[in-house]
Amino acid sequence: MLLLHLSDVDEASWASAFAEALAPYPVVRRGDDFDPAEIRYIFVWKPKPDAFDGLDNLKAVLSLGAGVDALLKHPRLPQAPIVRFVDEDLSQRMSDYVVAHVTMHHRQFSRFRDDQQARRWSQFYPPAAGETTVGIMGMGVLGQDAARRLKPLGFDLRSWSRTPKAIEGVEGFAGDAEFDAFLGGTDILVNLLPLTPDTAGILNRETFAKLCRDRLEGGPVIVNAARGGHQREADIVAALTDGTLGAASLDVFEVEPLPQDSPLWDAKNCYITPHIAAISNEASGVRYFSTILRAHEAGEPLPNVVDRSRGY
Amino acid sequence: MLLLHLSDVDEASWASAFAEALAPYPVVRRGDDFDPAEIRYIFVWKPKPDAFDGLDNLKAVLSLGAGVDALLKHPRLPQAPIVRFVDEDLSQRMSDYVVAHVTMHHRQFSRFRDDQQARRWSQFYPPAAGETTVGIMGMGVLGQDAARRLKPLGFDLRSWSRTPKAIEGVEGFAGDAEFDAFLGGTDILVNLLPLTPDTAGILNRETFAKLCRDRLEGGPVIVNAARGGHQREADIVAALTDGTLGAASLDVFEVEPLPQDSPLWDAKNCYITPHIAAISNEASGVRYFSTILRAHEAGEPLPNVVDRSRGY
Ligand SMILES: NC(=O)c1ccc[n+]([C@@H]2O[C@H](COP(=O)([O-])OP(=O)(O)OC[C@H]3O[C@@H](n4cnc5c(N)ncnc54)[C@H](OP(=O)(O)O)[C@@H]3O)[C@@H](O)[C@H]2O)c1
Ligand SMILES: NC(=O)c1ccc[n+]([C@@H]2O[C@H](COP(=O)([O-])OP(=O)(O)OC[C@H]3O[C@@H](n4cnc5c(N)ncnc54)[C@H](OP(=O)(O)O)[C@@H]3O)[C@@H](O)[C@H]2O)c1
Repeated sequence: MLLLHLSDVDEASWASAFAEALAPYPVVRRGDDFDPAEIRYIFVWKPKPDAFDGLDNLKAVLSLGAGVDALLKHPRLPQAPIVRFVDEDLSQRMSDYVVAHVTMHHRQFSRFRDDQQARRWSQFYPPAAGETTVGIMGMGVLGQDAARRLKPLGFDLRSWSRTPKAIEGVEGFAGDAEFDAFLGGTDILVNLLPLTPDTAGILNRETFAKLCRDRLEGGPVIVNAARGGHQREADIVAALTDGTLGAASLDVFEVEPLPQDSPLWDAKNCYITPHIAAISNEASGVRYFSTILRAHEAGEPLPNVVDRSRGY
Repeated sequence: MLLLHLSDVDEASWASAFAEALAPYPVVRRGDDFDPAEIRYIFVWKPKPDAFDGLDNLKAVLSLGAGVDALLKHPRLPQAPIVRFVDEDLSQRMSDYVVAHVTMHHRQFSRFRDDQQARRWSQFYPPAAGETTVGIMGMGVLGQDAARRLKPLGFDLRSWSRTPKAIEGVEGFAGDAEFDAFLGGTDILVNLLPLTPDTAGILNRETFAKLCRDRLEGGPVIVNAARGGHQREADIVAALTDGTLGAASLDVFEVEPLPQDSPLWDAKNCYITPHIAAISNEASGVRYFSTILRAHEAGEPLPNVVDRSRGY
């Protein structure tokens, strides 16, 4: 039996799509009449504290989120393996966001906007893509997809990950030892890391000060589409104000929705989107988890299982 | 002998680069002491009315501009073949501009900017790239390069040209007969046509009204990086005001610099850049024309010769 436990999304809609995809396999929701001991799979998003109570025969936790940082903090998370969402459609949408914001900053959007507001005709020629280095932090499913899209545009690319990566056309840096070297050659920093104790707050004043200052007119740029917990917002505001950063595109925030009184709303050259970079699509989510559930019931191993010791 | 005749750019710098590249072939500038009858090639940008006077043994006119619309209107243009600039670096920079503006509009930049200014957290999920159709008008050197860069991003692509084109992954439309069908499925219209009597004023109210209205939230978008003569600016202002267009990115204008009192400066969702989408780079320009001049002196035919009857 599959139990759905979703907050802040249309659980009923997901439930009927799952019921249809899995029939005759039973699908239930909280509040339905079922025996908790019969639940073998639970599909969750922002689970309540009692979400897992009594689920003594759980074979897997299925996570609607691609990131499991919040789930791993659940105080009564069972030992069952956690399968996270990995999906081409999600990667496509995230890359859509990343490419749009990288190219906009590469083409000096803020400068030309200021000129336009002042009715100023001031010819400035942005560098060609190949003269600009995009540094991607986190070279997993999303980071690799972003690199695959940015490469044909001509950008110079580098990546930073925990373990070394050899990806054609991308200069790989790994671990704490190579972090400064990675930053030193980066003009536009794209964050696609998972949020773990090691990566929390990584977008801070010290990191910003190490970015390349010589090439991109206006200063280096950050694009954060991973988690708000990665960024120190007070540092971002200060860095945008004093010129340590030239611009920032932020899709995620320390507190969401971003509070009305946050100074980020009107920080200089700060581009805010309300955590919409990439959404988990119902059709592909149901397809993905139904396939996994059926294969697992037939004895196959679970894919994309979270490593709890690493935190992602 | 090569004569340089360039306005509005650093002619001295180009002259010394050409002299070095072509030595011992003689290179002269206006004002130098030379016999006009000895000039076999003239390299021009915005030539004055007397530019070609006395050049009775001219073998070719070399045009710094990729577009030759202004040159073809020169009242005393000689009959010698015109070679226009075609260059990978120029195409790269143009595609940088096109991709940045297409992706920004696809990701609903104007909507999120308005939300940010109002401190409004309003989650809206842009369509995936594959759900958005980019229509490219002009499928020559620049149009094809733009298509080659937009394709790996996942966009649905279509093109419109004078003669039919069969380019993989791009639905081709050709001629007046297929113009309306081309527009009807286009969400984001990119203009990379040459300016000719047939294409002048093509970005007008009627054209805008034929674009696809169903898919892109906020309305269809135009991106003009070709020539100001392609657009009717009064129509653009009206279309942005009444919602016929959702946004416009314009790099070129009917009159340049754009006059201080133009209503485009603060038209709704109008994004202005001062004719900087792509510049002809001195190093690659000198390389390109030096190679052509030497090959032609050695008896080879001239490449990229303008067809005066077509106007491009
Ligand atoms: N804003 C949104 O709408 C949205 C949507 C979906 C996902 N996300 C976020 O995006 C994140 C990334 O997703 P993904 O699917 O690409 O994850 P993933 O496949 O697990 O990849 C994670 C990458 O980060 C690297 N990494 C982890 N810890 C590191 C550390 N301490 N130092 C250096 N590198 C480290 C990993 O290195 P190794 O390769 O060496 O393991 C890997 O390359 C998710 O966790 C989620 O938070 C945001
Ligand atoms: N803003 C800037 O910084 C900048 C920089 C460089 C160039 N430009 C402009 O970009 C223009 C295009 O350059 P390019 O090198 O790509 O030119 P190109 O190689 O000559 O290509 C022109 C394309 O337009 C099509 N075309 C011409 N007349 C047409 C008509 N009446 N109806 C339909 N299609 C028509 C041609 O069709 P066929 O294929 O059938 O011949 C061809 O596909 C230049 O002329 C220049 O004005 C602007």
